[in-house]
Amino acid sequence: MSVLLINGPNLNTLGTREPEIYGSTTLADVEASVRAQGEAAGIEVACFQSNFEGAIVERLHAARTDGTQFVIINPGAFTHTSVAIRDAFGAADVPFCEVHISNVHAREPFRHHSYLSDKAVGVMAGFGTLGYNLAMTFVIDRLSAG
Amino acid sequence: MSVLLINGPNLNTLGTREPEIYGSTTLADVEASVRAQGEAAGIEVACFQSNFEGAIVERLHAARTDGTQFVIINPGAFTHTSVAIRDAFGAADVPFCEVHISNVHAREPFRHHSYLSDKAVGVMAGFGTLGYNLAMTFVIDRLSAG
Amino acid sequence: MSVLLINGPNLNTLGTREPEIYGSTTLADVEASVRAQGEAAGIEVACFQSNFEGAIVERLHAARTDGTQFVIINPGAFTHTSVAIRDAFGAADVPFCEVHISNVHAREPFRHHSYLSDKAVGVMAGFGTLGYNLAMTFVIDRLSAG
Amino acid sequence: MSVLLINGPNLNTLGTREPEIYGSTTLADVEASVRAQGEAAGIEVACFQSNFEGAIVERLHAARTDGTQFVIINPGAFTHTSVAIRDAFGAADVPFCEVHISNVHAREPFRHHSYLSDKAVGVMAGFGTLGYNLAMTFVIDRLSAG
Amino acid sequence: MSVLLINGPNLNTLGTREPEIYGSTTLADVEASVRAQGEAAGIEVACFQSNFEGAIVERLHAARTDGTQFVIINPGAFTHTSVAIRDAFGAADVPFCEVHISNVHAREPFRHHSYLSDKAVGVMAGFGTLGYNLAMTFVIDRLSAG
Amino acid sequence: MSVLLINGPNLNTLGTREPEIYGSTTLADVEASVRAQGEAAGIEVACFQSNFEGAIVERLHAARTDGTQFVIINPGAFTHTSVAIRDAFGAADVPFCEVHISNVHAREPFRHHSYLSDKAVGVMAGFGTLGYNLAMTFVIDRLSAG
Amino acid sequence: MSVLLINGPNLNTLGTREPEIYGSTTLADVEASVRAQGEAAGIEVACFQSNFEGAIVERLHAARTDGTQFVIINPGAFTHTSVAIRDAFGAADVPFCEVHISNVHAREPFRHHSYLSDKAVGVMAGFGTLGYNLAMTFVIDRLSAG
Amino acid sequence: MSVLLINGPNLNTLGTREPEIYGSTTLADVEASVRAQGEAAGIEVACFQSNFEGAIVERLHAARTDGTQFVIINPGAFTHTSVAIRDAFGAADVPFCEVHISNVHAREPFRHHSYLSDKAVGVMAGFGTLGYNLAMTFVIDRLSAG
Amino acid sequence: MSVLLINGPNLNTLGTREPEIYGSTTLADVEASVRAQGEAAGIEVACFQSNFEGAIVERLHAARTDGTQFVIINPGAFTHTSVAIRDAFGAADVPFCEVHISNVHAREPFRHHSYLSDKAVGVMAGFGTLGYNLAMTFVIDRLSAG
Amino acid sequence: MSVLLINGPNLNTLGTREPEIYGSTTLADVEASVRAQGEAAGIEVACFQSNFEGAIVERLHAARTDGTQFVIINPGAFTHTSVAIRDAFGAADVPFCEVHISNVHAREPFRHHSYLSDKAVGVMAGFGTLGYNLAMTFVIDRLSAG
Amino acid sequence: MSVLLINGPNLNTLGTREPEIYGSTTLADVEASVRAQGEAAGIEVACFQSNFEGAIVERLHAARTDGTQFVIINPGAFTHTSVAIRDAFGAADVPFCEVHISNVHAREPFRHHSYLSDKAVGVMAGFGTLGYNLAMTFVIDRLSAG
Amino acid sequence: MSVLLINGPNLNTLGTREPEIYGSTTLADVEASVRAQGEAAGIEVACFQSNFEGAIVERLHAARTDGTQFVIINPGAFTHTSVAIRDAFGAADVPFCEVHISNVHAREPFRHHSYLSDKAVGVMAGFGTLGYNLAMTFVIDRLSAG
Repeated sequence: MSVLLINGPNLNTLGTREPEIYGSTTLADVEASVRAQGEAAGIEVACFQSNFEGAIVERLHAARTDGTQFVIINPGAFTHTSVAIRDAFGAADVPFCEVHISNVHAREPFRHHSYLSDKAVGVMAGFGTLGYNLAMTFVIDRLSAG
Repeated sequence: MSVLLINGPNLNTLGTREPEIYGSTTLADVEASVRAQGEAAGIEVACFQSNFEGAIVERLHAARTDGTQFVIINPGAFTHTSVAIRDAFGAADVPFCEVHISNVHAREPFRHHSYLSDKAVGVMAGFGTLGYNLAMTFVIDRLSAG
Repeated sequence: MSVLLINGPNLNTLGTREPEIYGSTTLADVEASVRAQGEAAGIEVACFQSNFEGAIVERLHAARTDGTQFVIINPGAFTHTSVAIRDAFGAADVPFCEVHISNVHAREPFRHHSYLSDKAVGVMAGFGTLGYNLAMTFVIDRLSAG
Repeated sequence: MSVLLINGPNLNTLGTREPEIYGSTTLADVEASVRAQGEAAGIEVACFQSNFEGAIVERLHAARTDGTQFVIINPGAFTHTSVAIRDAFGAADVPFCEVHISNVHAREPFRHHSYLSDKAVGVMAGFGTLGYNLAMTFVIDRLSAG
Repeated sequence: MSVLLINGPNLNTLGTREPEIYGSTTLADVEASVRAQGEAAGIEVACFQSNFEGAIVERLHAARTDGTQFVIINPGAFTHTSVAIRDAFGAADVPFCEVHISNVHAREPFRHHSYLSDKAVGVMAGFGTLGYNLAMTFVIDRLSAG
Repeated sequence: MSVLLINGPNLNTLGTREPEIYGSTTLADVEASVRAQGEAAGIEVACFQSNFEGAIVERLHAARTDGTQFVIINPGAFTHTSVAIRDAFGAADVPFCEVHISNVHAREPFRHHSYLSDKAVGVMAGFGTLGYNLAMTFVIDRLSAG
Repeated sequence: MSVLLINGPNLNTLGTREPEIYGSTTLADVEASVRAQGEAAGIEVACFQSNFEGAIVERLHAARTDGTQFVIINPGAFTHTSVAIRDAFGAADVPFCEVHISNVHAREPFRHHSYLSDKAVGVMAGFGTLGYNLAMTFVIDRLSAG
Repeated sequence: MSVLLINGPNLNTLGTREPEIYGSTTLADVEASVRAQGEAAGIEVACFQSNFEGAIVERLHAARTDGTQFVIINPGAFTHTSVAIRDAFGAADVPFCEVHISNVHAREPFRHHSYLSDKAVGVMAGFGTLGYNLAMTFVIDRLSAG
Repeated sequence: MSVLLINGPNLNTLGTREPEIYGSTTLADVEASVRAQGEAAGIEVACFQSNFEGAIVERLHAARTDGTQFVIINPGAFTHTSVAIRDAFGAADVPFCEVHISNVHAREPFRHHSYLSDKAVGVMAGFGTLGYNLAMTFVIDRLSAG
Repeated sequence: MSVLLINGPNLNTLGTREPEIYGSTTLADVEASVRAQGEAAGIEVACFQSNFEGAIVERLHAARTDGTQFVIINPGAFTHTSVAIRDAFGAADVPFCEVHISNVHAREPFRHHSYLSDKAVGVMAGFGTLGYNLAMTFVIDRLSAG
Repeated sequence: MSVLLINGPNLNTLGTREPEIYGSTTLADVEASVRAQGEAAGIEVACFQSNFEGAIVERLHAARTDGTQFVIINPGAFTHTSVAIRDAFGAADVPFCEVHISNVHAREPFRHHSYLSDKAVGVMAGFGTLGYNLAMTFVIDRLSAG
Repeated sequence: MSVLLINGPNLNTLGTREPEIYGSTTLADVEASVRAQGEAAGIEVACFQSNFEGAIVERLHAARTDGTQFVIINPGAFTHTSVAIRDAFGAADVPFCEVHISNVHAREPFRHHSYLSDKAVGVMAGFGTLGYNLAMTFVIDRLSAG
């Protein structure tokens, strides 16, 4: 069983960027933590980050045939602007959760709209980097039930 | 340490109401599960459900002085209509998470707005009744860190 | 066979409140008239009025299991503000008609939107208290056909 | 005493057009039924259908002087687009009810607005072709009271 | 002569809730102060607070026949959400003033709309708890002139 | 030289319809008055009224080749709903003025928008039936200058 | 009998300013022409132009008591921005027509709204400087009838 | 096999009306060209043009039973205003393509909305009169495949 | 201690202008009454009225250095249109209350927005000319407490 | 003579992605078909697909100088989000058609807006992959005429 | 060669008003600095400030004939409210730049709209009082090139 | 001291693309000019252009640690569509100015909104390529003052 963890633009700077909003955990920390969580449940976790919308689109295309059963994605800024990623999920035909580290509902109004949420299984925001683990807990539960 | 779990209108029918949307777990099941999770972490969980906005407001007033350190709330329909509960959180001065069983982003447009989300620590929707447990995991983590 | 007639907030003042808009028939008159109409068709009519949204929600929950086959509701002011009653109809899983005594389309703009209409079988407004009887005629026709 | 029943565009296809929405009763059936209802109450019912807005406008002009005391109209698609029919009711100076066979509130958003409703005595939608009879019951009641 | 002072949801927490916005005067202090002001003018002041919309609706129904000549209301959160209270004022047929302790115009946009203001005689916001006394001064002036 | 005077739906009822808004002058009076005005200036005035949008469209098509140099139109209700007449003016390639008897700016909001005004040379509203003569004065002035 | 002709900001530049829109007639020409028209009908015409909103407000206050029976106003840019002039007409309690030289409906969208039109007797736009004379014709007709 | 080609208001003036937008090909040319294209594929093409919405509605009703398998329609101005034609397609129960000669997306904003497009199989705009032939190519392909 | 009372455009006509809305008290009466109220509390009240936005702006500039401790302003029509006065309060750096004689919430929609309210300490509307005195009571209370 | 065919994000998955919407023809099939069509008319067709907005922008820059006379583009998701591609067409100074395989008007509302359509010569949607050939037919016709 | 520097309402308080937003440079400093910059380039700079919209309008009228070749304007609050100044630029027929000291894009939403920007050559905001000098540099460059 | 000059999509075509809007200066010219300006002030200027949003995001990440003290950016089309670049500025934690060559306020409405302006120190538009130098003058002034 295999899960794909995707992080969008600027999330490579996690831990250095605006720590008062995003905390000091780095993206490597996050990926290691989710991978460990998966390993314990017998699930392989592949990790991918890009600042390029096109690269995320193509990573999702690959997910269609590489055995990915679920995607956890923090689309970052692309949440609010990318129809291409929305369509790529359609093309990949794989279920996904949407995770935001900060509480987007308490930030600028344009962050209140997501091009992905209505296609997601579940959406969470504001639980810090622990949110990735909560989503992974859900995915493990779901894949185990499946 | 003490956590308050509040469920809003119609959630007393959980397990019988529209199971294709909300699943067959009952509210009693949910409450037992979150209580057990708390117990394991040395945290007492008080549970409250009401179909009356005023009753939830008054339960939150009580939370100000009864040692509640965190509230997990599924406000149900009041999410979209209650300024009084928003204000009651201000009066109670206690942090809270907002949990929705279904993915509100994939339902009617009026369910996309919440009077509580910008005041919440975190918000999650679509993770089924497991969402309550995910929120409780977060609360335990936070209270332990505190 | 059983029909539930629900009246929302302020309708207990019918006949005294703004008679130039609502006429002088009292709520007791209305209920008696609809009950008589039902009796003639071999249908029992239960009547309920409340100024509390929560009470109407709970009355609808009860309708799920008390043999109610159809609800006629004049939600009054809750028409425009209550998502909880909308959800309670989902929980009760019972068809309903929406009746307004006055022509809401000729009043304030906020009265032009209803949280219930798209879930109702039929909606009528402006036929005075006779509207309840017209709705009952429809319900009798439908239950007889059923 | 005289009532005019007007049906707007496409209603001549009633019974053949989208029966899952409009049922299989034809317009001739409807007209016969309302006429019979009128006859029993000593009220003559004149029937008119047109797919031309201008023809309905002119029929209403005629109503001003031909003894029409009430109009029952299902304006069909003209509900949402015709200011001319609204004005023609002003010119005819005759009260009217607006009837829709299907529940327009559960269909496309543009069907939620009517150019006639705020000028109507009453409005009903979703009661199938029985709606015409319910409206006629109201008109009989009103003309008798008058 | 008799005046009714109504306070809506969360105002029972006055003096403890967000004192930087609402000050430290309690609701009991406010009520005592307005009662004293009335007493000096030979006007009885009845006080009522509730967190339940339905209870306020019913208190207003009672006002129709208990000799109330004017209502001073701080509807709190119900200002922005309650059509039922608006309608209850219609049913009670009694003039009223709307008082807000804080300056609602300087807070969230949803607090800029009131379902009551266009039906009120006068509206005031931002004068702290003294606002109740200012409103009472106006009422005394008006009742004396009456 | 030739001018075409077009009147839209319901204007055939002028003088009988809502005289408090439109006055008691009939359409025949208006047409005779404008014709006399034209005659005095050596300009022939052709008059046309229809309650059918299509008939007005076709009358405008005819104007392209029948020597019409200017159109004075009171489009009535079609002002707010007809793109076809707007396009017919484009097809006829003839300048026009738009006249409204009543002050449309003081009536329902939907009467504040015209599909013709931005294509018209001039627009006037609220000058009663004298408005037709004022427009004719302008046209005579313009054709004389031409 | 007395008429007041008011011209708003920038209209003192008439004849020099953007002649392709406003023509080459000067304001003095316009005023002389309207005065002559009045003289012929035994009506005195007072003329006033200002680029200051406050000055127009005060001129209208004076109109209350100086025998002015009608105002013809081209409010220029103040059409779209001045509530004070709207209120001044209320204070002056004198009927008025609104005249625009150019067709405001064919210009920027913000020129489509007027703070005066719903209070005016009549409104005209696009008839060039002849529009002032057309309005004066109307006023003479009305004052003669009065 | 049979195809119906419908042209809406003003399209009878094709070739003479605003040739810089619509070109100089006449409607007769267009109809001949599409007919020839059909003939070559063994498909009969019936042509219809009207400036009356009601006439197009009734032509579509006829299409229900006259063997029409596909409609190509250029609704002209009715694109933006006719719910009746939308409903007539529902009544006729026949698939259709929507063709516009000019690029409506580059014209006035009200031309960007169509009451038909979401019910059409395909929509094209801006390909000049060749667009009719392109649509016919599609229809031939589809009917041949069918 | 010193208070500045500012009245905006048209308020010089108070007592003569639309008395059914504003009452018959004149501005001189109001100013005398507030001055007397101040005198009794040892506070000097300076009064200023202008129909010119610029004059009010400059009076506020003067307030910065002339010892003014509080401004009571009825901005009249400028409430809805003047950013300059809003900015002048910033420049003057002096707290203020906003008073309206009539209940602006019950009048035209454009009167529901104020460019000043979110910068004011308090806002009141609908209390007639007594409203000035109520505001003065508040100011006295506040300055005494200061 | 040379034509450039551009396909945007996710169109490389054509034939595998959501075949119920897009059919089973692959992008290679489409490109081969359009190339063949061009070859028959003596026109070279260059094909380009990318999931990166920047790559499409740069391909269009190249088109400025590589002899491209027309572009056929299916911008996919970039239709709704890319101002950069709009600007790149300006920079390339080459005419283009916009093709969508599915009927975007029948899908999510955000697909109803295109950043390219008002700059395109023509736009088509819903004709399946045949749409590319229809566009190519148009381009051949136009280049031949040129 | 001659340049006109206009400053709108409240800018006479520059240096004293809200220095955290606008800095401590006075308007006299700004004017001296821009004059010096002009002098060095052989360009005379005339300076004008007013809190009255009408005065700025009239100063622009004067600019038409006094040799002004370019205007640099900081319209202050009039940016957002004055159509009269927009029209005065049309009357003066002189090019202009719009300068704001603070970054209006980071302030209240109503400051994001300008009635002048689309008529300006260039617009700048947020560069402090240096912005005037930057604009002057541009004007010198342009006049030199001219 | 070091400044970074970033140019967004299509700006590599400067001097060839739509010269009537953007002039004939090339990007290399602009970069050389700004570099020279920096050199004279002892400030190094790094230049970067990309048509890929992701590349600009990553260049900004690099700016965090490469000694960049200020960024001058012309985001081109990304101004209106890129939340990722907005966030990258947050990650880079470096102040910036936004420069547009053309006056975006006079172009399409979607160009009136920027995702960057409220985070910028200053914004300028319409000063041609000289705008880059004006911004550099400001940056030099600021860095010298720092």
